[in-house]
Amino acid sequence: MPANAISPTRAEDYPEWYQQVVRAADLAEASAVRGCMVIKPHGYAIWERMQSILDREFKATGHVNAYFPLFIPLSYLEQEAKHVEGFAKECAVVTHHRLEAGPDGRLVPTGRLEEPLVVRPTSETIIGATYAKWIQSWRDLPVLVNQWANVVRWEMRPRVFLRTAEFLWQEGHTAHATAAEAIEETLRMLEVYATFAERDLAMPVIKGPKPAAERFPGAVDTFSIEAMMQDGKALQAGTSHFLGQNFARAQNIRFATATGGEEFCWTTSWGVSTRLIGAVIMTHSDDDGLVLPPRIAPHHAVVLPIARSDEERAVVLAACRDLESRLAGSSFAGEPVRVKVDPRDIRGGDKVWQHVKQGVPVRIEIGPRDLAAGTASVSRRDRGPKEREAIPLAALPERLPAVLEDIQRTLFARAAALRESRSVRLETAREVAEHFAEPTAGFAFVRVADDPAIAALLDPLKVTVRCIPLEGPDDPGPCVVTGVGVPRRSLLARAY
Amino acid sequence: MPANAISPTRAEDYPEWYQQVVRAADLAEASAVRGCMVIKPHGYAIWERMQSILDREFKATGHVNAYFPLFIPLSYLEQEAKHVEGFAKECAVVTHHRLEAGPDGRLVPTGRLEEPLVVRPTSETIIGATYAKWIQSWRDLPVLVNQWANVVRWEMRPRVFLRTAEFLWQEGHTAHATAAEAIEETLRMLEVYATFAERDLAMPVIKGPKPAAERFPGAVDTFSIEAMMQDGKALQAGTSHFLGQNFARAQNIRFATATGGEEFCWTTSWGVSTRLIGAVIMTHSDDDGLVLPPRIAPHHAVVLPIARSDEERAVVLAACRDLESRLAGSSFAGEPVRVKVDPRDIRGGDKVWQHVKQGVPVRIEIGPRDLAAGTASVSRRDRGPKEREAIPLAALPERLPAVLEDIQRTLFARAAALRESRSVRLETAREVAEHFAEPTAGFAFVRVADDPAIAALLDPLKVTVRCIPLEGPDDPGPCVVTGVGVPRRSLLARAY
Repeated sequence: MPANAISPTRAEDYPEWYQQVVRAADLAEASAVRGCMVIKPHGYAIWERMQSILDREFKATGHVNAYFPLFIPLSYLEQEAKHVEGFAKECAVVTHHRLEAGPDGRLVPTGRLEEPLVVRPTSETIIGATYAKWIQSWRDLPVLVNQWANVVRWEMRPRVFLRTAEFLWQEGHTAHATAAEAIEETLRMLEVYATFAERDLAMPVIKGPKPAAERFPGAVDTFSIEAMMQDGKALQAGTSHFLGQNFARAQNIRFATATGGEEFCWTTSWGVSTRLIGAVIMTHSDDDGLVLPPRIAPHHAVVLPIARSDEERAVVLAACRDLESRLAGSSFAGEPVRVKVDPRDIRGGDKVWQHVKQGVPVRIEIGPRDLAAGTASVSRRDRGPKEREAIPLAALPERLPAVLEDIQRTLFARAAALRESRSVRLETAREVAEHFAEPTAGFAFVRVADDPAIAALLDPLKVTVRCIPLEGPDDPGPCVVTGVGVPRRSLLARAY
Repeated sequence: MPANAISPTRAEDYPEWYQQVVRAADLAEASAVRGCMVIKPHGYAIWERMQSILDREFKATGHVNAYFPLFIPLSYLEQEAKHVEGFAKECAVVTHHRLEAGPDGRLVPTGRLEEPLVVRPTSETIIGATYAKWIQSWRDLPVLVNQWANVVRWEMRPRVFLRTAEFLWQEGHTAHATAAEAIEETLRMLEVYATFAERDLAMPVIKGPKPAAERFPGAVDTFSIEAMMQDGKALQAGTSHFLGQNFARAQNIRFATATGGEEFCWTTSWGVSTRLIGAVIMTHSDDDGLVLPPRIAPHHAVVLPIARSDEERAVVLAACRDLESRLAGSSFAGEPVRVKVDPRDIRGGDKVWQHVKQGVPVRIEIGPRDLAAGTASVSRRDRGPKEREAIPLAALPERLPAVLEDIQRTLFARAAALRESRSVRLETAREVAEHFAEPTAGFAFVRVADDPAIAALLDPLKVTVRCIPLEGPDDPGPCVVTGVGVPRRSLLARAY
């Protein structure tokens, strides 16, 4: 094991490896507030990249951003019965609006609220109440709004990025005149998420509806994109919900139709969160640390001057700065290439390893010998840390975008190949039980009915139906548990 | 009064005029949650413009973004005595983390927290606690971090954008090795705010330190930028605080010096909020509604097709779309011009007035007669709603940026002229009392000591010392209340 690698390795202890990758890459840390994380600058820069791409896609599909209150009156949450049932156990509740010194001088909450306020775990109810005011007529539809926000779901077993009490996300909330339009919107946003995951995160996903038991509380239909992590587990990376008229009825979101009638709206909601950062980490990183797909890397490349004396340093640093400004003129994925020079005066090996662990896609080292040869020594994060290629300095501005494109493609292909190698089709309940006896069993495509009876098979295995994949031809046959005919196979896996 | 103007006018009832401008421009509205606003898409789009410009400036001055928890343990808030005193009366407090059905079936909060959590009113304490872990040595300094976030300060008399229980803001938090560096940072960010206000918001500001009584709770020195609204009142548009070692001592943020010693860090914090939207509204808008400086307008121009028949409509709309795509190739303030066509089939007059009230800087009307003449009819929001100029369609892509630049300049000049006309220099306490007997008295530059004794003069007048302006030569003389010599005049005004 190289001295600077992550310890433990993925094979030794995957969950602990994950924590160590996060730490070594300086992405985030636990805070003193139970379950809440501090997203450190490098982690937040990845989120900013994700936000920037997604926000552009949302706007390109006709959405606008808005902002709704953090607090939800308890009575709002109660309006949709399944919804409140789904979230009641994990709500942070504000009960007072003031602090005053108590008898012992310590502060105590005072100013009790008449009605407690819930810190939003999601915003269907507060936004729905607003839409009920905004929407009067069919002319007001569709309403296509997205919100970037923090949400809180009290979490007893927090895990950085994957499961935290507070997280950052976006939540789209739309209202439509017909069921067909709302379903079209639900699937359009599922597709936006799938494209983002595959094109930008280099993370292959399987998209499809969830079985009834796994739906968003209050939804008619929940669709998700599911990715495979390197330990074979599934991670739900985004969801898009067709809410039917459930919330519209509960919250009285009605509109006058073009023909003079009155109807309830059809609504949708859809979201992705900072959990995606965890998904990216577990999809691409290796035993040397974080690996980032170039499209969401805060910096595409770092330029590292190598010098042994002050004179050397001056010459080499000047060459690095020159290269930096020439590279900034190149573009990748429609944006200027993001390059930085790291001139810090620390041991060269330590510096290289920091950038390896932080997942910078390309490292460009320049020393006196490189300069003499008119080249730079280029290392790709998707290859071994010692591998390098001499590329003429003059050619780099043209070559770098192609290198980044190739890294992006390689990461996707690698993840797709892993998923392919860890996926099976199973035909009987016994095969399912045997397959999932293995703790890192991967994906199984199995015919199961959307029926509570299948829990008897899956629950003991700690396996769930992730979704019923939309792609590919029908593949009808009997449910492995109930024997009832089903048109397609479902994706079964253990999940984060 | 034109039928479509805002009612009441500014002269009739300024506070109500403000509410009506916000409503007519569709910027925001009160929510069912006491004191919390819904920022509607048009209002949020203005905030996005502000964020985009400020974020670029913060990064250009060496800052990175990060994200810290929404919740602050009560014990953290208590660490800095003045700080907690300043915020205790307006804290939303989370006391429970679960909801369960009570005896009557209604939900009640359960799962009481051992230590109550405060919803952040500002983040010095939670961020300081984190910095205490991050900072070990002088090599770790400076730490230059900004956070975009929501904050909550319970508000008994809310007013949309100006004073709301929840608002959106950015808060910069930095830590330095020396007092000089921290003061330099404090002033640098004050300058960033002032430049943003004047260049982008077209809002002249006066910058300077606050007197002791007006400082941020826990700060050694607070600097602000102060703008004059059209009713003559001051609005504090941004603050930058030199916190000295107060928070570092309270939270134990120490570092090993280069010479082997150990010292407390010197910290700063600085912020602007969605309040700036209120400031822009009150600086530029008129009795026809919102007026937006082009640099922060979500759309620079709207193209309005005018047609009486379906045939006309097809031809005119095609010309509008063609113009739209040609205009999008122009640039203003370093970004592509933002244009939209409004093809809605509603009465032309209503449509024009909607865009007037929404503050779109330039309206471009195109009808069959314009097309025949090869021109468009261009109206500027900084001029009367009936004023228009025929500009050749072919020349518009080149002319529009200059028109926008001129509107931006005109709005600044107008606001500066108003401030000039409503500012006086006063020499005695009696002059101060007489001047501020007028409810819309404007700014007065007066020599006052930073002494509690001046409250006797100012409190009854509901006037405060806004800041001690930094610009201009010293102008020493005796305090109008205490007679003590002071080096400069202070800015006195009523304030939002």
